[in-house]
Amino acid sequence: MRIGFIGLGRMGAGMAGRLLDAGHTLAVYNRTAQRAEKLRERGAVVAETPEAAARGAEVVFTMLADDPAVEHIVFAADGILAAMVNSAVHVSASTISVALARRLIAAHARAGHRFISAPVFGRPDAAAAGRLFVVAAGQDETIAFVQPLFDAIGQRTYRMGTDPSNANLVKLSGNFMLFAAIEALAESFALIRKAGVDVAAYKDLLTSSLFNAPVYHTYGDLLVSAKDEQAGFTAALAFKDVRLAIAAAESLQVPMPVASLVHDAFVTALARGYESRDQAVLGRVAAENAGVRV
Amino acid sequence: MRIGFIGLGRMGAGMAGRLLDAGHTLAVYNRTAQRAEKLRERGAVVAETPEAAARGAEVVFTMLADDPAVEHIVFAADGILAAMVNSAVHVSASTISVALARRLIAAHARAGHRFISAPVFGRPDAAAAGRLFVVAAGQDETIAFVQPLFDAIGQRTYRMGTDPSNANLVKLSGNFMLFAAIEALAESFALIRKAGVDVAAYKDLLTSSLFNAPVYHTYGDLLVSAKDEQAGFTAALAFKDVRLAIAAAESLQVPMPVASLVHDAFVTALARGYESRDQAVLGRVAAENAGVRV
Amino acid sequence: MRIGFIGLGRMGAGMAGRLLDAGHTLAVYNRTAQRAEKLRERGAVVAETPEAAARGAEVVFTMLADDPAVEHIVFAADGILAAMVNSAVHVSASTISVALARRLIAAHARAGHRFISAPVFGRPDAAAAGRLFVVAAGQDETIAFVQPLFDAIGQRTYRMGTDPSNANLVKLSGNFMLFAAIEALAESFALIRKAGVDVAAYKDLLTSSLFNAPVYHTYGDLLVSAKDEQAGFTAALAFKDVRLAIAAAESLQVPMPVASLVHDAFVTALARGYESRDQAVLGRVAAENAGVRV
Amino acid sequence: MRIGFIGLGRMGAGMAGRLLDAGHTLAVYNRTAQRAEKLRERGAVVAETPEAAARGAEVVFTMLADDPAVEHIVFAADGILAAMVNSAVHVSASTISVALARRLIAAHARAGHRFISAPVFGRPDAAAAGRLFVVAAGQDETIAFVQPLFDAIGQRTYRMGTDPSNANLVKLSGNFMLFAAIEALAESFALIRKAGVDVAAYKDLLTSSLFNAPVYHTYGDLLVSAKDEQAGFTAALAFKDVRLAIAAAESLQVPMPVASLVHDAFVTALARGYESRDQAVLGRVAAENAGVRV
Repeated sequence: MRIGFIGLGRMGAGMAGRLLDAGHTLAVYNRTAQRAEKLRERGAVVAETPEAAARGAEVVFTMLADDPAVEHIVFAADGILAAMVNSAVHVSASTISVALARRLIAAHARAGHRFISAPVFGRPDAAAAGRLFVVAAGQDETIAFVQPLFDAIGQRTYRMGTDPSNANLVKLSGNFMLFAAIEALAESFALIRKAGVDVAAYKDLLTSSLFNAPVYHTYGDLLVSAKDEQAGFTAALAFKDVRLAIAAAESLQVPMPVASLVHDAFVTALARGYESRDQAVLGRVAAENAGVRV
Repeated sequence: MRIGFIGLGRMGAGMAGRLLDAGHTLAVYNRTAQRAEKLRERGAVVAETPEAAARGAEVVFTMLADDPAVEHIVFAADGILAAMVNSAVHVSASTISVALARRLIAAHARAGHRFISAPVFGRPDAAAAGRLFVVAAGQDETIAFVQPLFDAIGQRTYRMGTDPSNANLVKLSGNFMLFAAIEALAESFALIRKAGVDVAAYKDLLTSSLFNAPVYHTYGDLLVSAKDEQAGFTAALAFKDVRLAIAAAESLQVPMPVASLVHDAFVTALARGYESRDQAVLGRVAAENAGVRV
Repeated sequence: MRIGFIGLGRMGAGMAGRLLDAGHTLAVYNRTAQRAEKLRERGAVVAETPEAAARGAEVVFTMLADDPAVEHIVFAADGILAAMVNSAVHVSASTISVALARRLIAAHARAGHRFISAPVFGRPDAAAAGRLFVVAAGQDETIAFVQPLFDAIGQRTYRMGTDPSNANLVKLSGNFMLFAAIEALAESFALIRKAGVDVAAYKDLLTSSLFNAPVYHTYGDLLVSAKDEQAGFTAALAFKDVRLAIAAAESLQVPMPVASLVHDAFVTALARGYESRDQAVLGRVAAENAGVRV
Repeated sequence: MRIGFIGLGRMGAGMAGRLLDAGHTLAVYNRTAQRAEKLRERGAVVAETPEAAARGAEVVFTMLADDPAVEHIVFAADGILAAMVNSAVHVSASTISVALARRLIAAHARAGHRFISAPVFGRPDAAAAGRLFVVAAGQDETIAFVQPLFDAIGQRTYRMGTDPSNANLVKLSGNFMLFAAIEALAESFALIRKAGVDVAAYKDLLTSSLFNAPVYHTYGDLLVSAKDEQAGFTAALAFKDVRLAIAAAESLQVPMPVASLVHDAFVTALARGYESRDQAVLGRVAAENAGVRV
């Protein structure tokens, strides 16, 4: 297929690489162009504008950091909305608000385009390996049409109905689950450390019994080592996502006290200057609150 | 070995059965004696008092519901403290407070006994199958002495140092992790349901990707079905345990806001008359708070 | 002075009436025109558009429900920004976000206008009686210029520096204090009621000793009687304001856990269909959570 | 009347002095005897034991720091329970748990004594001036009998029914209201400070408008000055009281999320070594969490 791919951060670059490997034709765009060089070497065309990446494409992927970035890429004068051909598909893989997803649905419908929300779970290494989990929602035929692309980037696609914004809600809800797990680990590690118990043994107990899941392995290790300087996913981005989850819950009138609590924990992290650290920095915040050195 | 085993609830009965299967000699005691009948048929001696169960035993297990039950069994006139022979081992497998563990340590030391805290993770079916996770702390030689018994009841033993109360803290902390996971599921399920998204598909996503762990499978299924009438572990017991976790954190001066939040969720559950339901009732409480029918 | 006054809700109508009483010339505008009739009888000119109310005015007041209303009145094609004459003063008395206040400051500065934020504390009866508390921030000379108008509507003006957005932050912070007081009353009343103690006696104790302040008298009485159907200030508006307070705190990176908790309490109120009740409905929510009839 | 008075801390000493001033005969006891010297000079007999203070008294006051102190004074071998004559009245003015109040009620009833709970609101200067607020519950005739004593120590007596433990619950609930007010001030002051707004002007606004009550004046000033080294009431004692409030709420199955949040704030204060500072230290904790210097 002819694909436009916009957003070549650590996630997007991996995904675009997988699509190239699967034999598709890619026109890629990134705000800072040098990030596109490696993909150019692998055969991608590097577009000067989002519009140029979208022009003539059957499918346009966006994989961007936040709502304002997506709004700009779609709605700006040189954005993809004006450039996409009739019945082309916009696949929005970014983690964005449910409200923006609704705007995108309406705008693409008016323009005669098709639209799929397909946010993904997984860290950059999973993106590069085509091992993401894809959460897709939208018209069945449209998803069927782009399914080969999802198969190239992910190990499995989960369908969440025909309203694309459902997938965005599910993604935000899943991220909330992740933050909640990290915060619970953070608090219990602070307790275990302050008692003088071996926190690595505690982590080993959790992750070899009831909590034998990737998220507890990954963040358990990060909290044991307190190595949060190298961010797989920064506290600033996590804070953005918990705010989007709360905004979605507000719209649906669903109280989510753990989300509010995690929100406050991330605000505290930002107040301490930890915005660029990994979201595992919640462990550091909890330890500091308990007067424990990590 | 000659073993006294006290407390034949659903967990204790399974554990005692495994010790019999392993060829040990058991004198068992339970407050309501009929619960001992099945074990009598399998070869156990049924004692009339805790004292009788403990007399002459090399090892005395206690597996009881709460602090007051353990206090009574140990310190009462017909309790085990007075009955145990010199250098016999008390293995306390109950989930009790760190403070009571400290009292037991001191009392047994004065009496010339040995003492191990060895609380367990797992539900009744795991107890019956000898598949528990045993968290043990105490003197190394003493643990080595009773290790064959742990091997009979558990699939693995985790060592948490030489201070027995460490194991109690770890158990409470692990239960906190469990409650926190259930509460996070409860909130996110309320969100997903109110949005009209298929909650079983959402659960499937979580448990086949980042949250592929026993606790999310078990409680995810319970929350999808909302089948909380049959309690594997009641809300009342869970509330007791979160209070013990908070009490331990107070002693160590560790703030645990998620624990406080879970505490309040369980108080709400009790106020709604849900004390006998499974701890998964947190899902019902969250759904009700969001105005969602389950 | 020639004054344009926009927004004739229960607060705005009282304030405009006071300005008329003080001898000023008013052109008033309200989206639903019939609310202007009483003021027409008292001598006000009723404008057809915001633009018409602002044209030729020395001072333009806005007293509107929320950010979108203010944005529309100011920035729309027939809005006040385009209509105001050079050096005219916009007095923004609405409770709006700090972010919108910043936009207004910048836009009026570019247009050569003067701008003051002057939100008010007090309920509609205080507005009608000229007994509001005015929180004003902006250039000293500008405030001095409009001070006679503040004296007509308020019993006292509090100065919060020269950056107008400070007054907006202070207003949101004061509203937060109010919500926090209501929530604390709500929880303690639920406790007192469930214990079977006379809640009126408890309220009397509080309000005649440490908590002898208007807010506790007003909301203490409302919680004793549970008369929240007649809203002086609705739960929906209160929820809007706590969100603005949280947004301001996010920008400043200040964790405010009580604000988050009040946020969740109002979301619960909305989920129960209480959006049109008085904000005192927090008392009903807390009582319901405790299983207490009110 | 012949009065035994036990507990001569800063509150108790003031109360005992007022009773002397009113012409009563006092036998006083304090664990550290030198605190009794000033009262001896004013005519009190200094007893060597609680028993000696209680023997022959018509009324025995206790004004002690916490539950263990009261338990010891009442139930110890040389305690007041054994020493009090038939139909003598024990007036328990300490802030104790509802559970202990229940034990005292039962024990005194068995012994043929009368019992009144009469905790007080006010700081030490109010105690010395006879300006306390007395919260009394118990049999009407008994309260009538001791009313002249309450008139000597307090400016007003509030009656909370015939079950003495009601007064203890009301006292704990009132203290909760106080902690909640301080925490709300703490968070809003952190916000105002970090925005660079004059916090004294903000405090002046609050306390001259909606929050014109003693508690906001007192703690508003303490938070503006951040002078929390001199404790009128320590963070450690406040933490004790919030735990008792939560325990009472647990028994009644009333969720009190603000109480849990204040609990966590005090745990954080203790973790930072602030146990001897005034409870106003919550302001310092909130400022630190926001990264604001005070």
